[in-house]
Amino acid sequence: MVKVMATGAFDILHMGHIYFLKEAKKLGDKLVVVVACDSTIRKLKHEPVTSEKMRLQLIKELKIVDEAYLGQKDDIYKIVEDIKPDIIALGYDQIHDEKIILQNLKNRNIKSKIVRISKYKNIADLNGTRKIISRIISAYEFQKNIEKIESK
Amino acid sequence: MVKVMATGAFDILHMGHIYFLKEAKKLGDKLVVVVACDSTIRKLKHEPVTSEKMRLQLIKELKIVDEAYLGQKDDIYKIVEDIKPDIIALGYDQIHDEKIILQNLKNRNIKSKIVRISKYKNIADLNGTRKIISRIISAYEFQKNIEKIESK
Repeated sequence: MVKVMATGAFDILHMGHIYFLKEAKKLGDKLVVVVACDSTIRKLKHEPVTSEKMRLQLIKELKIVDEAYLGQKDDIYKIVEDIKPDIIALGYDQIHDEKIILQNLKNRNIKSKIVRISKYKNIADLNGTRKIISRIISAYEFQKNIEKIESK
Repeated sequence: MVKVMATGAFDILHMGHIYFLKEAKKLGDKLVVVVACDSTIRKLKHEPVTSEKMRLQLIKELKIVDEAYLGQKDDIYKIVEDIKPDIIALGYDQIHDEKIILQNLKNRNIKSKIVRISKYKNIADLNGTRKIISRIISAYEFQKNIEKIESK
């Protein structure tokens, strides 16, 4: 049985996430998802919109996901030792340097292969959390402008 | 086999949706979800953030969902005739008048029971699409204010 591990923030679920998880699952038989905890997201990207608890719960509700866990705060490799994946799937936009990961895995005697998943290409969909946020903010600014014009 | 039908917009998935679908499923054996099309949402509520295609695709990815379809644009009862549910589950915030629904079902000779699902009570979660949108807008306004102060 080939165990695939995929990680991510999964903040506001969208089709880019689903594509990533489906491509990851294709690499093996069992998909274990590690959801980044809030403090890791803050370090790497920005403030998450939804909490780690909610992000983990939603990921567990997906058909494609066999198991899901929250990543650890201070040691992101600790959970890899626990899961022992045959393959680690990386998203196209995940900034991790594959060489550094491989070195870290080697130091801990973890023998996972790393596979980079391509970008989801259906541009008609809102395939990124930032795109969804941008759309919400655009609608909000549009509404504010309408109100400004109407109040004049 | 008891077939339960649940409908909704499901715009930006959250734990309120999951709770609603799980409570609906408990009423029977098979859960069929009808995702409101964009034009129905515009008529009833507001502009959806994510498209009907994406909302339907995401709903289909949930473990709890057995089947999912897009609602019809002009005749929201047409799909009920096709699905023939034993039970129709209504969300706590769905504004439909149960008496009017029952009358419409009777006119079409559909013998579904209607069950109103209670509100999801875990207030720690972002359990509504509007709450998630509010949070995004608050963060955006906060950021704009910081930039304003810093540029002075």
